[in-house]
Amino acid sequence: MEEKVEQAYLYDFYGELLNEHQRRIYEDFIFHDLSLGEIASCEGISRQGVHDLIKRCNKLLAGYESKLHLVKKFLDAKRNVEKIHSLVKEFKKSQNEALIEEIEQISNQIIEEL
Amino acid sequence: MEEKVEQAYLYDFYGELLNEHQRRIYEDFIFHDLSLGEIASCEGISRQGVHDLIKRCNKLLAGYESKLHLVKKFLDAKRNVEKIHSLVKEFKKSQNEALIEEIEQISNQIIEEL
Repeated sequence: MEEKVEQAYLYDFYGELLNEHQRRIYEDFIFHDLSLGEIASCEGISRQGVHDLIKRCNKLLAGYESKLHLVKKFLDAKRNVEKIHSLVKEFKKSQNEALIEEIEQISNQIIEEL
Repeated sequence: MEEKVEQAYLYDFYGELLNEHQRRIYEDFIFHDLSLGEIASCEGISRQGVHDLIKRCNKLLAGYESKLHLVKKFLDAKRNVEKIHSLVKEFKKSQNEALIEEIEQISNQIIEEL
């Protein structure tokens, strides 16, 4: 996964465990694409301070994922539901009954894993 | 949801964020169904100490859920996949095409919400 996309996922799942100051700066960097210099001048802190804070947030968020694995769990489930979705579309075109069996199997697998 | 089932879900999701001591005692209480007195004598602490620790763990776990809502998100997705699973079974019996539309709709909804 591209690094910023991965950071965005981690933030989406665990961001509420950061404090407000960390969240504001992290969002500016990841979602609003501000540079370290821009954030530094907005916040009245040094460029190095912003850099360190973002590094610390990355470490905290990655630490939550390495303990809880919830981003992985949800992404796996999402990928499987997307597979079901495309099999349904295919079935509507082809009426191939084997696709229905596959949908049943995948839905079963998701339920077991969730 | 029954209280112990809810606590088990919360623990399953966020338990790794508790420390080892908390996890051991919480597991004895929730999963191994030991009484406060039994845990107290195993751990060499007071019954009140065990009681307070479990109360504190419940509060910590509930706090994570109130910030992250991941148990709710997961249970919603699971319920919807179970619905897909039963619609597939129904379709195999009835060959009713409307069920396929419903499966498509629900899978779409899950993807949007995950």
